[in-house]
Amino acid sequence: MRIVSYRENGREFWGVVDRSGKSIIPSGRIFVEGPETLLAFIQENGTIDANVLDMVGSVPIDGVELLSPIPKPQRNIICIGKNYEEHVQEIKNLDDDTLKRVMENPVFFTKATNAANGPYSKVPMHEGVTDFVDYEAELALIIGKRCVNVSEEDALDVIFGYTCLNDITARDVQKNGTQWFRGKSLDGYCPMGPWIVTKDELGLAGNLGVRSFVNGEPRQNGNTSIMINPIPRLINVLSQGLTLEPGDIIATGTPSGVGAGFEPPKPLKKGDIVRVEVDGIGYIENEME
Amino acid sequence: MRIVSYRENGREFWGVVDRSGKSIIPSGRIFVEGPETLLAFIQENGTIDANVLDMVGSVPIDGVELLSPIPKPQRNIICIGKNYEEHVQEIKNLDDDTLKRVMENPVFFTKATNAANGPYSKVPMHEGVTDFVDYEAELALIIGKRCVNVSEEDALDVIFGYTCLNDITARDVQKNGTQWFRGKSLDGYCPMGPWIVTKDELGLAGNLGVRSFVNGEPRQNGNTSIMINPIPRLINVLSQGLTLEPGDIIATGTPSGVGAGFEPPKPLKKGDIVRVEVDGIGYIENEME
Repeated sequence: MRIVSYRENGREFWGVVDRSGKSIIPSGRIFVEGPETLLAFIQENGTIDANVLDMVGSVPIDGVELLSPIPKPQRNIICIGKNYEEHVQEIKNLDDDTLKRVMENPVFFTKATNAANGPYSKVPMHEGVTDFVDYEAELALIIGKRCVNVSEEDALDVIFGYTCLNDITARDVQKNGTQWFRGKSLDGYCPMGPWIVTKDELGLAGNLGVRSFVNGEPRQNGNTSIMINPIPRLINVLSQGLTLEPGDIIATGTPSGVGAGFEPPKPLKKGDIVRVEVDGIGYIENEME
Repeated sequence: MRIVSYRENGREFWGVVDRSGKSIIPSGRIFVEGPETLLAFIQENGTIDANVLDMVGSVPIDGVELLSPIPKPQRNIICIGKNYEEHVQEIKNLDDDTLKRVMENPVFFTKATNAANGPYSKVPMHEGVTDFVDYEAELALIIGKRCVNVSEEDALDVIFGYTCLNDITARDVQKNGTQWFRGKSLDGYCPMGPWIVTKDELGLAGNLGVRSFVNGEPRQNGNTSIMINPIPRLINVLSQGLTLEPGDIIATGTPSGVGAGFEPPKPLKKGDIVRVEVDGIGYIENEME
C-alpha cells in the first residue's frame, strides 16, 4: 500500500494511492472519523481495510501537490552515516582499523525538522551559508511502533514502511567542526516521498537499488544489499536504551557517487535537477534554486 | 517570571511561580481559555499580565511534582559542544589550529526527545549500553519566536527564557564512531528545569555561574562569561539557513570538570546524586539509578 500526504486547494490531506497508481483515495473517504494526518495514523497504529478502497471515490493524483509523507516530523530525522563501504572511502580514505570500527559502530546523526521538504519541491541553495551543496540518495524507513532495545529478529515488527529520501548536505558546513548536524539541517534539505510504501510490500528492504541522477546523469547506483550495517542491525543498535516512536524517520545511509567523491568534485548548481530512486518505491525529483 | 510544568494527581499542568517562590499559580487560573501546555504558550507567543497573578489562588509547590518545563519537546534538543576552552582541553588536547577552528565554528549536535527528564527525576544508568555515564552542567535557552538568519544584535529578541540542563552523556558510546547523537540520547539523559526564567530577568545571560556537584562534591564551576562563543554568536551561527521555532531548546555548552576530565576518570555510579546549578535560575538534582 502506498500512503501519501498531499495539498489540494491550499489544504493538507492524506490518503492511499489506488491500484491504478493514478488516483488517491482520501483518508476522509476511508474513515468516518479518522486521524487528520498520516503521522497521526501511524502514531495511533492504524490499519486500513484494502477492501474498502475499491468501494469509495478517489481524486486524480495529477491534480494535487504531493507533500513529504510526514510534512512536519515529530522530531529530528535520524540518519546513518558511512553505511556503504565505497561511499566511506570516497569521502575519506580510511585505514583498516577505522573501517572496522565503523562496521562495528554505525554512526548516527540527525537532520532538523525544518529540513523536511516535498518530493517534487524546490530546494534552496543557501548560497550565503554554503559553497558546496551535495546530494545523498537514501532509503528511509518509518517506525510503526514505540520500541526500545529491539533485537535484530524483531526489527521488522517495529517498521511501518519506507520512502525515498535525499540527505542534502552543505559539505563545507558539515566539515566545519566535528559534528554534522548543522550542515545537514538547512531549510528544505530533506526532500522525501513520494509516499510511504508499507512494509508488507518490501519486508526488510534488503535488496533494493538506490540511485541518483543530476540532470539525468547517473551519479549513485547502489543496492541496500551492500549496506555495512543492514536495517535489522541499525534498529538494534539505535534502539539500545533509546526509545523510538511511531512516525520516527530513519535514513539508512548513502552509496558512493556523491558530488564530493568526484575528482574534481561536482557540487550542485542552481537549476540542477536531482532525482533519487529506490526500487519498489519510486522516485523524488527536486530542482535546486 | 518563573514558569513551570508540573504533575498533580496524575495530570500535567503548567503555571507561574508566585513571588514567595512557594506556590504555583496554575495557568487555568490565569487564562479563561489558555494554552494547555507551556510549550503551546510559547508557540502561541503568549503573554502573562503580572498583575493578574496577585489576584488568583495558587497551589503549594511542595505538593506537586515539577516536570521538565517542556516535558515533550517538539524536536531534538540542540546542543553546543566545546564552548568552554578548559573543557575542550580536558576532553582532548587540541593543537592551536584546531582550537582556533572550534572558536570560529561552534559545534552543534542534538539529543533525542526521549532523553527529556524532570528536574528531580531519577536517571537510568543504562548499564548494558554504557560503561561510562558522565554529567555536563549547562545553561539552556528556549527560543520564543520563529526565526532564521538572526544577527547577533537581534539574538535577545528571539529568546523566550532560560533553564538548567544536565547533558548526561554515555562517554564510551559518544566516542564510538564520530557522531555524538547516540551517546547523548539515551532515555532520561536530559534532566531540565526546574522552571523557565523569562529573559526579562536574565537578558543575554552573559555572566551566570554554572556549577555541578556529585554527592555534594564540587565538580564544575564555570561562568557563561567565559564561553568561547557567547549566546548571540551561537544563535547567529545556528540560525544561518536553519529556521528555529518557538519552544526549541538550545543547550549552550559545559565548563570543565566533567567526570571524563579527571585522572583517573570519575564516571557516575548508581545512587550518585548529581546537582546542576545556574545563577539566577536555581538547580536540578537527579539520582542515578
